[in-house]
Amino acid sequence: MSLSWVDGQPAAAIAADDRGLAYGDGLFETLRVVRGQPRLLERHLQRLATGCQRLQLNADLAAIRQQLEDFAAQLGEGVCKLILTRGSGRRGYGPDLRAAPRCLLQGSPAPVWPTAHAQGVRLYPCTVRLAWQPLLAGLKHLNRLEQVLARAEWQDGLHAEGLMCDPAGHVIEGVFSNLFLGRAGELWTPDLGRCGVAGVMRAEILARARTLGMPVQVREIGLEAFLQADEVFVCNSLYGLWPVTAFREQIWPVGPLTRQLQGALAGLLEAS
Amino acid sequence: MSLSWVDGQPAAAIAADDRGLAYGDGLFETLRVVRGQPRLLERHLQRLATGCQRLQLNADLAAIRQQLEDFAAQLGEGVCKLILTRGSGRRGYGPDLRAAPRCLLQGSPAPVWPTAHAQGVRLYPCTVRLAWQPLLAGLKHLNRLEQVLARAEWQDGLHAEGLMCDPAGHVIEGVFSNLFLGRAGELWTPDLGRCGVAGVMRAEILARARTLGMPVQVREIGLEAFLQADEVFVCNSLYGLWPVTAFREQIWPVGPLTRQLQGALAGLLEAS
Repeated sequence: MSLSWVDGQPAAAIAADDRGLAYGDGLFETLRVVRGQPRLLERHLQRLATGCQRLQLNADLAAIRQQLEDFAAQLGEGVCKLILTRGSGRRGYGPDLRAAPRCLLQGSPAPVWPTAHAQGVRLYPCTVRLAWQPLLAGLKHLNRLEQVLARAEWQDGLHAEGLMCDPAGHVIEGVFSNLFLGRAGELWTPDLGRCGVAGVMRAEILARARTLGMPVQVREIGLEAFLQADEVFVCNSLYGLWPVTAFREQIWPVGPLTRQLQGALAGLLEAS
Repeated sequence: MSLSWVDGQPAAAIAADDRGLAYGDGLFETLRVVRGQPRLLERHLQRLATGCQRLQLNADLAAIRQQLEDFAAQLGEGVCKLILTRGSGRRGYGPDLRAAPRCLLQGSPAPVWPTAHAQGVRLYPCTVRLAWQPLLAGLKHLNRLEQVLARAEWQDGLHAEGLMCDPAGHVIEGVFSNLFLGRAGELWTPDLGRCGVAGVMRAEILARARTLGMPVQVREIGLEAFLQADEVFVCNSLYGLWPVTAFREQIWPVGPLTRQLQGALAGLLEAS
């Protein structure tokens, strides 16, 4: 790690009894940093605040914002990963609801993806299903074994992402992305009330689509409806937006909604 | 922490980029240590091996056994928590399947529970449901937010444990225990194929019940069947067995199967 802080101080290690390690009792955010500025900072902080509320994590979000800004200024360019845990507190599952969370910040270079991804990617059909847990749905918490297992399903370079479904076979998201599709001029994205991560770039795209006057639906989407889409794309806060042009036997063009949103996001995540 | 090792060496901190922290990408075991010996060691190692297989963790179990035995000898008396993570490896969800796991051992004094618990406890009716995830069911992995949320549901001293159900309302387990009930002379325990932790003391009790000639069923158990039980108890590898004598309006006696098994386990976890 090039740059690593714990509670505002340079440190590359944490206490072995941290509850983030013991139970995944915490949250994280992964922010693109451009010219010393964390991108989509307000949305990241908003999701973090929602997570703190749901997990009853007693965080000082103003102090976290300040640490993030200081860290990003020092990092300059790349990715900042924030991990917020319930700290070392109590043994056993029961959380100390008054405990001060521990805040980790880790810097790394901006990931490099094939430039061709911006013209279209192929999705791998993951067999790992996302379990329904409405109490945790939407949050970017530290319990991510489903994503670890799903990402282990393919090693080839042919698939840039994998499609994950819920136990009923609804399409939900990619392993590290959210999913959108276009149908008859409407923009659809899966409802994340029972599983999935409510991505920051998903929120940004929903907001921009509404500004652009696109009809938007956040809804249940079965595999059949997905396959009948006119266009598909995935997104996250590091790479932005990739059109999806292939899944199994299915081929899609890069559609007009995808192009319009790709244009709207241009420059948001670029270094210069 | 009184005693803490990382990969066989005294250390109270771990690398901040450990995947156990980042994603809960790992497993744990909590062992009672009596006179320098870890109790139920073979069963703990067996569950750890199953977990390694399911998570594709490339662990040297013979080396882990040796570390556990050395650690327990040094600890003498108390509880040894073993955490096995996929180590620091790769960024992103994708695991490096050849990575050498990181092994943490943490010692603490034996927990002290009210002695009255051995005569019967009251269960809290947790509202948090255990999600169905057959790929992770049975394992003692590091994704434990459901238990954290469930244990936060009660703070009173009246309830020693909480009852957790699955999304269909079947009873599954306690927050930190497994569950058994007696019905018409048969011993029942919930099937854990879709959720729950397959406890080491549960396995020990199932084996002893069979030796004692008790008819045993591992099966789906609805809330109604649970309420109609003749007797109920919970168990884990630290406290052994507690009869359950109260849940909501329901009162149970300490039944004959419970007493017989309590007798069979006597001395297993005691210090002297």
